[in-house]
Amino acid sequence: MIKDKSARQNTRSQEVYEETVTEEPRINSGRLWDRHMRLAEIGALPRGGVNRQAMTTGDAAARQLLVAWANESGLTPAVDAIGNLFLRFQGRDPEPPPIMTGSHLDTQPQGGRFDGAYGVLAGLEALTTLREAGIEPLRSLELVIWNNEEGCRFAPTTMGSAVFAGALKLEEALAARDSDGVSVADALPALLAATPHAGRRALGSPVSAYIEAHIEQGPTLEANQCPVGIVTGIQGVRWFTVEVRGRAAHAGTTPRGLRRDALMSAVSVLRALSGHFHDPDDVVRFTVGRMQVSPNSPNTVPERVTFSIDFRHPDGSVLTRLGDAVPAVCQRAVHPCEVSVSEAAASPPVAFDRGLIETLALTAKELGIPHMCLQSGATHDAKWVTHLAPSGMIFVPCAGGISHSEEESATPEALAAGTRVLMSALLKLADGE
Amino acid sequence: MIKDKSARQNTRSQEVYEETVTEEPRINSGRLWDRHMRLAEIGALPRGGVNRQAMTTGDAAARQLLVAWANESGLTPAVDAIGNLFLRFQGRDPEPPPIMTGSHLDTQPQGGRFDGAYGVLAGLEALTTLREAGIEPLRSLELVIWNNEEGCRFAPTTMGSAVFAGALKLEEALAARDSDGVSVADALPALLAATPHAGRRALGSPVSAYIEAHIEQGPTLEANQCPVGIVTGIQGVRWFTVEVRGRAAHAGTTPRGLRRDALMSAVSVLRALSGHFHDPDDVVRFTVGRMQVSPNSPNTVPERVTFSIDFRHPDGSVLTRLGDAVPAVCQRAVHPCEVSVSEAAASPPVAFDRGLIETLALTAKELGIPHMCLQSGATHDAKWVTHLAPSGMIFVPCAGGISHSEEESATPEALAAGTRVLMSALLKLADGE
Repeated sequence: MIKDKSARQNTRSQEVYEETVTEEPRINSGRLWDRHMRLAEIGALPRGGVNRQAMTTGDAAARQLLVAWANESGLTPAVDAIGNLFLRFQGRDPEPPPIMTGSHLDTQPQGGRFDGAYGVLAGLEALTTLREAGIEPLRSLELVIWNNEEGCRFAPTTMGSAVFAGALKLEEALAARDSDGVSVADALPALLAATPHAGRRALGSPVSAYIEAHIEQGPTLEANQCPVGIVTGIQGVRWFTVEVRGRAAHAGTTPRGLRRDALMSAVSVLRALSGHFHDPDDVVRFTVGRMQVSPNSPNTVPERVTFSIDFRHPDGSVLTRLGDAVPAVCQRAVHPCEVSVSEAAASPPVAFDRGLIETLALTAKELGIPHMCLQSGATHDAKWVTHLAPSGMIFVPCAGGISHSEEESATPEALAAGTRVLMSALLKLADGE
Repeated sequence: MIKDKSARQNTRSQEVYEETVTEEPRINSGRLWDRHMRLAEIGALPRGGVNRQAMTTGDAAARQLLVAWANESGLTPAVDAIGNLFLRFQGRDPEPPPIMTGSHLDTQPQGGRFDGAYGVLAGLEALTTLREAGIEPLRSLELVIWNNEEGCRFAPTTMGSAVFAGALKLEEALAARDSDGVSVADALPALLAATPHAGRRALGSPVSAYIEAHIEQGPTLEANQCPVGIVTGIQGVRWFTVEVRGRAAHAGTTPRGLRRDALMSAVSVLRALSGHFHDPDDVVRFTVGRMQVSPNSPNTVPERVTFSIDFRHPDGSVLTRLGDAVPAVCQRAVHPCEVSVSEAAASPPVAFDRGLIETLALTAKELGIPHMCLQSGATHDAKWVTHLAPSGMIFVPCAGGISHSEEESATPEALAAGTRVLMSALLKLADGE
């Protein structure tokens, strides 16, 4: 790295972890926290959470705010065909592909203030601190905001990164529709309008390396009182859609013996699935998060019930064995109704780059920040970027491991510790160490 | 009755039940059937059903069509403050309160072509036939279209008749909101605009007697191969709303042991309720027709599940005993979540007027139409009219007893047989026999 004349003086650390062994520019942890709070006002919910689903007006407003901050730091915007946004800090050598960091700004319908936002704001803070310190990295650095990570409004999850990495066809993503029938192709222009001066970036453009910071969304770091996690990989996931079909009938007149009640059969199927996925070690993750009843009228026996299955496991063979049995388990329990099961999405377990894991661990050690290695329970955009470049992730703890909830919470100290590791690792990679 | 010069000649019956022992004007069963088919085009669904919920544009269009037909028959329209529509066939003596018949034009979200529509069109056919036959009854006859019988869009069911009979406050009904937040007060003007020339009718105006024709919506008449049912009463009903509250959490990261999954707890509660309401005789009607999951996202553990209970029984003491135990049954099964139960509506069993039941049975006998007495499993507007006047109902069979379903079906012969009994009974009552 090269420092120019305007580089600020490093002062004695005010952080929790003071045994800093390498000289580093100081991130502004107050600004980092304030920006989280400011961003959380867009789509704010009454109990402190955020509803800022992909490609809504809130999502576009969040981008505008982010780009305004990035402008102040001299970052240059570009967008690709699926609406991913790239903010570039040009290196001394413009030739090599960028070192990339980022995450997403969209949230769950009742999401928290840190899921996604942290990775974006940590990246922004890292790049901003380096600029302010007058550091000119050899390779370019880029902050990326992946479009539609949550996949709540438009399935699948991690849509933007999957399209960028070539794992999902652009046309398929553009054709996805929300529950009101609006397609991604319909909704995307309003999001892109938030960055009218952005250049164009080709899908699949080369990347030198990728690091994503994120709250853990699980209980491990907190339980171990560890401020930073180095992520070794992401467990695999299979999504299924189950449709139970019965017959609508009048609630007041139809004897139980003549009913084909889709909801009562769905209850039997759900109990059978609960048993099927039950493991004493509590490693399997089995969730039915979405359910629709039709016609959903109090005085009509339900004709049709549709529900989702989200099944995850770190072991690919368990994913195959338990997942493949889902249709048979449903079939055995559905009488007197009928059932069909389709697989909506699948992604095998992912291992992050060994070299990058070592770089991140070494960086944390150099900064004197306690850290541990762990597996990610949640899926992240980093999963797809592994198709293009060495990729890795940094986790910070969140209260109670709770996420996808308005109760989601993290401390300014945790956010700052992860950002320090991120910034130093980015600089290491950019300067080719 | 008095016949005028234009009375049509009675011809030999073409009906199924030919042993007519009294002279009667002939209803036009072809017209009756055709009007059902024509009405079913408004809100038609792909599989032959109808979605024409209360106070929608479809509901208004159905009224316009009905009033056009009623105009041809010289009936005079009036509306009351909750949107019930009255179509009057003035008697020779305008003083006594009218003999009333009717039902409703609104349907379930996935309803059939006969539920409600039959009672309206049978009444119209009866009054039209009497007009065409030149008969001038002593008392006035009135066809009533009760507003919002189904209660799907705006709770409760039988709203219009309940308000008319003084069993539900007008202000309370006007304040009811649909799931989009639209109130009855907001939606009513568009319905009333369908009858711009209607006079005003006061709520609770006197009625001499009321007969409602309806499809049975149950299997009894079909099983007994009986074309006409004389209804002795309506079983009682209690509606509950159950809310299960857990905690939202990330589907990929949260171990089963740390979850408070509202859907999995709701499944336990539903199983417990199924057991609670299970009776070997299959007389209890227990239905969970509506369920909402929140936030309803595939990768979030559900935070809240709300569902409806529709519980019916002919015996008031059973309604009390099983219904009162619902909160405790839910409580015992909901761990580790929380539950609250509220009673949304209740109506005790209703017995129809003994004299009117006898009149209807005698009329059917005189017409040579086989009939039987039975209890109604479904609630009907007639329930509330019992508060104002002697009331009764005529049922006709529907295929498989299926109703509140697109599969709902009835035969032209069944519709005609019920209409013949209705018309003769109305005339008997109007002429004071």
